[in-house]
Amino acid sequence: MTIKEFAKILNISAATVSKALNDSHEISATTKARVIALANELNFQPNPHASSLRKNKNKTIAVVIPEISNNFFSKAIDGIESIAQEKGYHTLIYLTHENYKKEVGVLKHLLNGRVDGVLASMSLETADYTYYNELLDKNLPLVLFDRISDQVETAKVCTDDYHAGFIGTKHLLDTGCKKISFLAFSEFAYSCLRRKEGYIDALKAYNIDFDESLVVNCTYDMVSNFSLLNNILKKRKKVDGIFSSAENLAILTYQICSELAIQIPKEIRLVSFSNMQLASFMSPSLTTITQPAFEMGKEAALTLFKIIDKPRTNYKDVFIEMKSNLFIRNSTKRY
Amino acid sequence: MTIKEFAKILNISAATVSKALNDSHEISATTKARVIALANELNFQPNPHASSLRKNKNKTIAVVIPEISNNFFSKAIDGIESIAQEKGYHTLIYLTHENYKKEVGVLKHLLNGRVDGVLASMSLETADYTYYNELLDKNLPLVLFDRISDQVETAKVCTDDYHAGFIGTKHLLDTGCKKISFLAFSEFAYSCLRRKEGYIDALKAYNIDFDESLVVNCTYDMVSNFSLLNNILKKRKKVDGIFSSAENLAILTYQICSELAIQIPKEIRLVSFSNMQLASFMSPSLTTITQPAFEMGKEAALTLFKIIDKPRTNYKDVFIEMKSNLFIRNSTKRY
Repeated sequence: MTIKEFAKILNISAATVSKALNDSHEISATTKARVIALANELNFQPNPHASSLRKNKNKTIAVVIPEISNNFFSKAIDGIESIAQEKGYHTLIYLTHENYKKEVGVLKHLLNGRVDGVLASMSLETADYTYYNELLDKNLPLVLFDRISDQVETAKVCTDDYHAGFIGTKHLLDTGCKKISFLAFSEFAYSCLRRKEGYIDALKAYNIDFDESLVVNCTYDMVSNFSLLNNILKKRKKVDGIFSSAENLAILTYQICSELAIQIPKEIRLVSFSNMQLASFMSPSLTTITQPAFEMGKEAALTLFKIIDKPRTNYKDVFIEMKSNLFIRNSTKRY
Repeated sequence: MTIKEFAKILNISAATVSKALNDSHEISATTKARVIALANELNFQPNPHASSLRKNKNKTIAVVIPEISNNFFSKAIDGIESIAQEKGYHTLIYLTHENYKKEVGVLKHLLNGRVDGVLASMSLETADYTYYNELLDKNLPLVLFDRISDQVETAKVCTDDYHAGFIGTKHLLDTGCKKISFLAFSEFAYSCLRRKEGYIDALKAYNIDFDESLVVNCTYDMVSNFSLLNNILKKRKKVDGIFSSAENLAILTYQICSELAIQIPKEIRLVSFSNMQLASFMSPSLTTITQPAFEMGKEAALTLFKIIDKPRTNYKDVFIEMKSNLFIRNSTKRY
């Protein structure tokens, strides 16, 4: 059934039906009730062209991210904005500072606000997804990227974290490392768990037993991360390789190794997830696994605009996985 | 005169006076006209307690910045948010990507929007300040920080750019440099011009003539910056020192020197404005002039909230200058 046919039954215009289904303030409560009752009765969903009748007066999308002092997120935002600008949309950026309470505050604000869609990367503390699901209940288009959760049924864009964990660890093993520590930026984050699975499977492939005591579960608190990592490196435990799942943990490793006079790569080899432009100019230059941050931002925004343009389509199974790249530099040079 | 005494003359409530002065939609045009006429006649400005009667339903401030892949701005935002959070305000971040048209788009959006105040750092292209002045005409509280202009009469927060330009150049001269190139991130930006004045005066103090051909006027276009700087360094012109007015130009210098096999600091010494956490771990470690980015963000936000709390006070002459610090590292080591 087309929206025109549906409208004819009620003897109103197609535009009125569309506006009523989109809860427009231009339509009276009585008309909305009539439209919704009949839509439920006939199980009617308007087709995309009808939905596009809905006028988007806000032309604004929100991006919810944990932090911006991280090169991944700043490049992802550049990618998002390149698409939003093309579409004539404003981009509002909200920071959660990896704090669940702040995230909830932002999501509540968005629930009552006037944005046309939301792109979000979850905070490290997030374990309750009620507010994300409320956005979906209110039919607010939502795309998760990088920091995703399978508890929220919507479109997702991420990288091949398992594979990246595997090849990064394999590279360390190939340079001769036997005792590789895994620096987890979170004990729970989906992407970090996938990276860790890749790490464990690469060890297995080289017949090395996985040793839980070599996993350092870091948090957003860099002071506590410092002492966690400092303890591991001080005792040494014969650690000869480090797989860092986040850029800031690699910087921390450089700092601690410098203080403890541990030479990279002579004594310890290091590979890290990072989008630093500076990786080549560090001392030693840093071997990185680099996510296609700009492209991920673009892809996430393109997906969001698809949902905004066709709000009634089912996007919950959209899952886009993009490829990260290993750049080998001196921090993993074999001695 | 208190707001109560003022209200008594007109036989209306203090709240009505306050709302009328704040152009509330709850107050009729007639009442507003009466209140404003008398306020002008008596030169009456409400005291802070009266102004705080105004209900701020939005509880949102906007931050307009050129980019976030820059450590200065990401730390400034952390400072701004630390204050906004204390006050229970949401922070919306808008990026202009150093583009005047985008900036105008954002400012127009804010003019029609519902934020309680704006913190802004101008784009490199901005030479027309009409839209900033329109924010002021609409009584929207505005504080400029770092990228400021004397063409906009409002509160400003910046660093001691002249002094920083002077001490950075003096440091290069003290290490024995004779031909120092100045990398300007913009030909027009107020802060960059001040840095350049400091550079010129330090040369004078050492009886070295200022040579305009050693000034490299960079732009937002890193490709064109690459060839400008590459030309200077290729020809060498016996340049033995570089004063970089922006972090990304220092990174570019490392890149070009690496490609041209010019050794830092042996052949060329480099000092740069930068807020990079990594400066110590670069090869060679980078001598930096570091702005108190976090504190500047805090100060700018505190100033904005003062204006939001006392909207009728005159803040146009508020000018806060904060101190930058020189951190000497290996990129200026004397050979």
